[in-house]
Order: sequence, then C-alpha cells, then structure tokens
Amino acid sequence: MENKTLRVVVLGAGFGGLTFCQAFNHPQARVTLVDRQNHHLFQPLLYQVATAGLSAPEIAQPIRSILANRPNVTVLLANAVDFNLAEKKVLLEQSTLTYDFLVLALGGVTSYFGHPEWEPFAPGLKSLDDALRIRRRILLAFEKAENECGAAEHDRLMTIVVVGGGPTGVELAGAFAELARHVLKDDFRRIDPTQARIVLIEAGARLLAHLPPGLSASAQRQLEKMGVEVHLGAKVRNISQGLVQLEDGQTIPAENIVWAAGVSASPLTRKLGVELDRAGRVKVKPDLSLPGHPEVFAIGDMALVPDGDGKPVPGVSPAAMQMARHAARIIRNELTYDSARYELRRPLTPSLSTSEGERVPKAGEGVAITGFNAQQPALQGHRLERPAFKYWDKGTMATIGRSAAVAKIGKLEFNGWLAWVAWLFVHLIFLIGFRNRLAVLLQWAYSYVAYKRGARIVTGLSEEARRAGN
Amino acid sequence: MENKTLRVVVLGAGFGGLTFCQAFNHPQARVTLVDRQNHHLFQPLLYQVATAGLSAPEIAQPIRSILANRPNVTVLLANAVDFNLAEKKVLLEQSTLTYDFLVLALGGVTSYFGHPEWEPFAPGLKSLDDALRIRRRILLAFEKAENECGAAEHDRLMTIVVVGGGPTGVELAGAFAELARHVLKDDFRRIDPTQARIVLIEAGARLLAHLPPGLSASAQRQLEKMGVEVHLGAKVRNISQGLVQLEDGQTIPAENIVWAAGVSASPLTRKLGVELDRAGRVKVKPDLSLPGHPEVFAIGDMALVPDGDGKPVPGVSPAAMQMARHAARIIRNELTYDSARYELRRPLTPSLSTSEGERVPKAGEGVAITGFNAQQPALQGHRLERPAFKYWDKGTMATIGRSAAVAKIGKLEFNGWLAWVAWLFVHLIFLIGFRNRLAVLLQWAYSYVAYKRGARIVTGLSEEARRAGN
Repeated sequence: MENKTLRVVVLGAGFGGLTFCQAFNHPQARVTLVDRQNHHLFQPLLYQVATAGLSAPEIAQPIRSILANRPNVTVLLANAVDFNLAEKKVLLEQSTLTYDFLVLALGGVTSYFGHPEWEPFAPGLKSLDDALRIRRRILLAFEKAENECGAAEHDRLMTIVVVGGGPTGVELAGAFAELARHVLKDDFRRIDPTQARIVLIEAGARLLAHLPPGLSASAQRQLEKMGVEVHLGAKVRNISQGLVQLEDGQTIPAENIVWAAGVSASPLTRKLGVELDRAGRVKVKPDLSLPGHPEVFAIGDMALVPDGDGKPVPGVSPAAMQMARHAARIIRNELTYDSARYELRRPLTPSLSTSEGERVPKAGEGVAITGFNAQQPALQGHRLERPAFKYWDKGTMATIGRSAAVAKIGKLEFNGWLAWVAWLFVHLIFLIGFRNRLAVLLQWAYSYVAYKRGARIVTGLSEEARRAGN
Repeated sequence: MENKTLRVVVLGAGFGGLTFCQAFNHPQARVTLVDRQNHHLFQPLLYQVATAGLSAPEIAQPIRSILANRPNVTVLLANAVDFNLAEKKVLLEQSTLTYDFLVLALGGVTSYFGHPEWEPFAPGLKSLDDALRIRRRILLAFEKAENECGAAEHDRLMTIVVVGGGPTGVELAGAFAELARHVLKDDFRRIDPTQARIVLIEAGARLLAHLPPGLSASAQRQLEKMGVEVHLGAKVRNISQGLVQLEDGQTIPAENIVWAAGVSASPLTRKLGVELDRAGRVKVKPDLSLPGHPEVFAIGDMALVPDGDGKPVPGVSPAAMQMARHAARIIRNELTYDSARYELRRPLTPSLSTSEGERVPKAGEGVAITGFNAQQPALQGHRLERPAFKYWDKGTMATIGRSAAVAKIGKLEFNGWLAWVAWLFVHLIFLIGFRNRLAVLLQWAYSYVAYKRGARIVTGLSEEARRAGN
C-alpha cells in the first residue's frame, strides 16, 4: 500500500462537492471532481439572473479556476449515468471511474409532483440556462405586449404567475414586481409596465412555511405592498400553455408561469439501489454514508439526514457545506489511520535497533512502539468509530426586494430593512471568488441608487424562434 | 399639416441607428426604432465576450433603457422583412410601418464569399449569441482534451484557427493566445493549455491591410511573440468539420475554426431595388439618401459612401455615428423648413393686423415677413440644398493583447503599450452607459493584475448536446 494512490471521486460541484474538495486533503489521495457544467453556481442568487439583476458570470465561477491551486484535484466535465457500487465504479457517459471513496453531491432537480408535462409551460429555476430562459421570456412578454393591441392578450402578456411560496417563489415574485414597477417603468410607449400583474400561488396556509408564522405574515405584507397578489391555500390543478388552473376552478391566463414549488433529489439516486424518501433523497446513516457502503457518502440536497429534533436537515447551502466537511474529516481520518496501521506492521520484518546493532527481530520478541501511531486503536485491529453528523443552524433568511426581507437567526426574528442588510451581508460574504463579490456589490449599489438592472439583455432569441417554429 | 405628426422609421439599433435616435429631435416627428434584438451591442468588444474576458451584459445595454428619456422614440423588437418604397412602407414580420422618412442602419452580416456551407464549421462573430457560442466551443475543446488520450485527437482539440487578418481576426487570435497561455495555465491536470496552437490565416500579404505596412509588421511581431502562428498569403480552399484546407494543399485539423474574413451588408438591401456593390452595400448619393428616394437614408456598414479620396468610408463605428448625425441634421432641417413654409402660407387666409383692426388680407396685398422664417429659401419655392457627407477619420486602432496594440491617429503611428492604453481609453470613453464603463474598467483592471478572466462560464450546454444529437 505504500505507493498506492487512493482515489476519491466526487460527483457534483455545488456547495457540497466543492467544499469537500477544498476541505479534504491527504498526501496519498487523488480527488476527481465530476460535474456536468464547467462552473460552480451561487444558487441563492440565481433568481437575480432570472429577473435581470445580475449577469450569469457574476454568480458563477469556473470550477477549474476555484480549484487551480489544488493540484491533487482533477476536474472532469462529464455526465455520471450509473453506478456499480459492488465494484466501486462510477459510469460516466464516455468512461468509467474507479474509486476507493465516493462522495455523492448531486443536488436536486425541479420536481412537478408527478406532472412532468407542466415543465415546458412552467420552467423551474435550477441552472443558469433555466435563469436565462426565464429572463428571456419575461422580457419578451413586455416586448410582445408593446406590439399588441387586444386588451385580453395584453393582460395575459403582462401577467406573471409564480407557483410556490417558499424562499425561491417569494424572491422571484418580489424581484418581478420591482422589475415591472420600477426598472421598466419608463421604457415603453404603448404599455405601462407598472400595470403588470404578479401573482404568487401557494398551496399551504402561509408563505415561507419553514419560518415562524410572524415572519410569514411579514413577508406577505411586504410583498403585497410591492403590488404582488398573494394567493394562499391555492392548489394547482393543471398548467397548460399560458394558463394556470386552480383546484377551486379559478383560471389565470399568464404568458409567464414560473415553477418554484418543488425540488427533488437528482434522479441518479434511483440507480443506487438504496432506500430513498418521497423526494428521492438517500436515507443515509448518521455518519452520512450509504447503508452497507461505508465508502460511499451522500451529502447536501440529495441526502436525508435527521437533525437533533428528528426533523430532516434543510436543503440549504450551509447544511451541504457542513456535510462536506464532515465527510472530508471522516475520510481523512481513516486514511491517516490506515497509513498508521501500515507503518506499524512494516517494522515487523525489517531491522530492529539493539545494543548489538541492527538485526531482524525474532518472532514474539517485543517491539516498543512510541509516538502517535501507538495511541491509535489500530492496534486492536478494528476500524475507527465514525462520528455522527450534527447540523449547526446559523439562521434562515429570505429576501423580498429592495430593503425588504425576513430573517431568523437563533431566536431573533428580523424583517424589513435590517433583515435585508443582513441578507445582503451574508450573501456577499459567501460569494465564492473576490472578483464576483466586488462586481456584485457594485452592481447592487448601482441598482439600489438608480433602480436600474444591468442585465436586461436577451440572448438566444434565434434559438427561441427556432424552437417556437417547431 | 399643422397637427400632422411626421413618422421617422429607423431600422437597426447599432451605432448608426442609435446615434440617429439620440441626435434627431423635432417637435412634429415621432421616431420608431426597430431592431431584432432588445440590446445595443458595443461591437468593438464583442471579441472579449467570445474569449471569456467580459460577460454579455457588460458590452450590451437594453435599447429601451438607453432611450428611456426620449419620449418621442418608440422601440419595437421586430424583424423587418421587406419594403414598399413607392408607398413608403416597411413590412415587419407581423405588421407594417408607414414612414415619411426612413433611416436604414441594418449593419452587416458575416460573409463566406459564396461558401455559406462553411458557416456551421467556422462561425462568425456578429452577435452576442455568436460570441457565446464561440466561447462555449473553445472552452469545451479544452475540457474534451482533458478527457482525451489519443495524441492526434488531443492536438486537434488544442488547435484554434482564426481565418482573416483584419482587426477582428487579430484581436481574436491575440485573445485566444492569452486565454491558453496565461488564463487557463493552471486549470488542467492532464493537458497543458500553454501548448495550444493558435493559427491566424490571412489571404493577403499582410495583416491589418487598412493600416500602414509598418504597423502590420508590428502587429505580426507582437502576435508571434505571444505564440500565434501567422500564415500570410494563405487562401482557404475548403472548410469542413474540424478541418481547414488551404489552396497550397496544407490542411490544419482544428476543433475550433472562427471566421473573421468577411462582412457584407445585411441581405435586406437586396429588397430595396437599388444598385449595390459586391458586398451588398447600398450605393447612396453624397447626402446618404437612396437614388430616387430622398426620404430614405442608408448609413453605417450597409452604405457605400466615397470619402474625399474616392475610397469608400470604412465600416467602423465612428463612421456610422457621423453618418447618423448627418442624416439627422438633413431631416431636421427639412422639417423645420417645411414648417416654415407652412407658417408662411397660413397667414394668407386668416387675419392680418392693420391699423383698422384684424381683417383677411386681400389677394395680392403685400404681407411683411420678418424673423428667421423669412430668411429661408422657402420663399423661392424649391427644396433645401442638402450637404454632402464628409468623413472625419479620427484614427484607427487594433488591439492584440495585454499591453499590445497598434494605432494610427492622423499621421502618428503607435504600437505596443502606448497604443494599447490609447485603445483602452478610446473604448472605455465610448462605451455607452456609465455602469458598463465602470464594470468593464474594473473587470479589465482585475484581469490585468490577476491574469484571470471573469467570464469563463459555459451556458447552453444542454442545447449544444441536443444539437450534436441531431
């Protein structure tokens, strides 16, 4: 084993996978990080790209560039398609990777609760391409309305429905309202963008169900003040091209419908042959490993981990990053431990220093072992005990718009301007990469002062036209 | 005519069309600006988007936002498809516009000199979508090479051919060399990006044929120092998927081939029924109007205008902007003149102030006319003489890379660092919109210091995959 290189394969370069690569280091291990995209995405700001506040490169960084100073990490742009856990292999589209340790950090996908046919009419928001598509369609709707004479069609074009009152839905609805009421205000001659109708639909009894009821109410008030129509207890029966039908029979014609109601784990989890929950998440052991596969870890949004109270750890980036560090620590400890065991066994054959000089020790002859290795339980011949993952909840927040947000940190609850500043601060701190942080800060400072949006650029129009023609 | 609104239709929101809208103002005129895109593009920096130096929104501004403070301008996102010059109509895809004055500022398209079949294998660089596509393909080639074992395929993936040694070709080749040699240097583990081969092919005897020979030679030296292979007198015989064949029998296998060799006027010029040159440009009269149609102007890259020496005015943005101001001045003067003529005729029927009070003047009774209108040649009953367009050449420059450029301003020639600073200065000054200017400056300052590129983000991968599958 002395010269053997240990192979750690990481799937997914989101917050989980990337943090793992940054936290994990062992002289004998080589890490291969596989992702379908060439960039790490700062997902909490994705709604800003969809609403034309930020440009795509401002919230994304090339994975290679983030890990350029980690020579033990190889980045592969590739699609994982299947697993052979028995032989410790991951099947990529065009090749196969063998691992000693596997870290699954594949994140989630938009889920339509058994209605995948709604997807073309109500796109979700998980990738940069999703965000750019939503931005394009929203901006084009105003353009079409400027060209349109009929009143009904005008109203339909000027309506945006957001389905789902979680953080993403609330952020999107607020940002769309600002876009229409402030940013686009003077841009048109025939239509009045401030008359756009933004509708937020939530099936449950309140918005932001993960926060205390007081903050839910505050979020709703702040949204309504911005002109968003909030419909609570509104279940979607069907979505078709430009039309939302609710269970109560109400229909809302809308050129743009955005789906922010559901997320499930990457469908690749189904190939693992282990138990999943309804959202497709892997039911991992307390140490985050797969049952029966101590060498495979699942972290982040694709893992179902009970926290202290028995509730599952939420699918947020701090949780994914904490899980990544937990898995990195376990693997590093075990590699160190294995090296130590190897080091202990090695002296049994070679030389022993005695007063008579170097000689091979006789069988049964005692060898005094000192130092760190001697303290390891390696000598008892069993594996290290693995610690259970503990989630540290640093707080939860959701932004609604300019100076409007809600936040819960520990037992403290904030709303309005203070929550918004806290939100801004936390998000800027955690934006990976100095350049982006500065660029985003400037962009926001400018938007705040001028109520303009810098990224109101439509690309891919020809592509859109080609698709519409099909 | 008193309450009649005059309709000015402008096609194209490039430098020509946009400058026209900014320069033209007349209380009786309403302007409609039609463009296929929602943004004005700072075309001189498009190569920076293609080479991952800048993000798309950094060199583009929403047209509506630029013209938000011009209530007499209506912006339409639409495709012009045909003309009816006799009835003064422009046919859009879904409607028709009637004009009193028409300004054509449609710009150019990539031209393959009769080989449109090369387009899929060697994309040109005219729009943001073009630039994003080139960026995606270049970055993906390095990704594929990292996954590839065969030497021949590795070399093909690591080769970029730029066809055309004009300003765009020189800028692209230089920027690709910097991307490979500096920016991507530490990003890969299996390949060495600094070994990438950048080939610049020019059919003529020197690069930048519009500049003096000394600067051409300097540009070539600066490129070669950066590791670019420059092939002069190299004519392309054929381009197919990943392969360039030259007239001399040489073949260059290359994953990426970028076409920067030719531009022709928008194909819409063929619908005008007027004389065109070989590049499809409209042979306008000295006042920039179409022969036989004094109410129609063609400006910018789509117009063939002889300058003082009989040579055509070059297809650069300062020329387009000067032409726009020229056309704006002519139209404004003629509207003012027509109003004046109307004002002069009007008092002939209504009242005349005399010592006896207000009364209708008798036929033949002299009416004293004073002030500005009286001085107009209107009284002679013929139209205003139109001035001929004169091009003011402010200088020409091309950038090659970090601290590398060539410039000619008046009789002065510069190269190296000084030319580069001049280039940077001129381009920043003319970037429309404060935010962009600041963002681009910061971006460049950062790139200069850190040798990083902020926009190395690949979007549209799934689209690319779908196309490849077809």
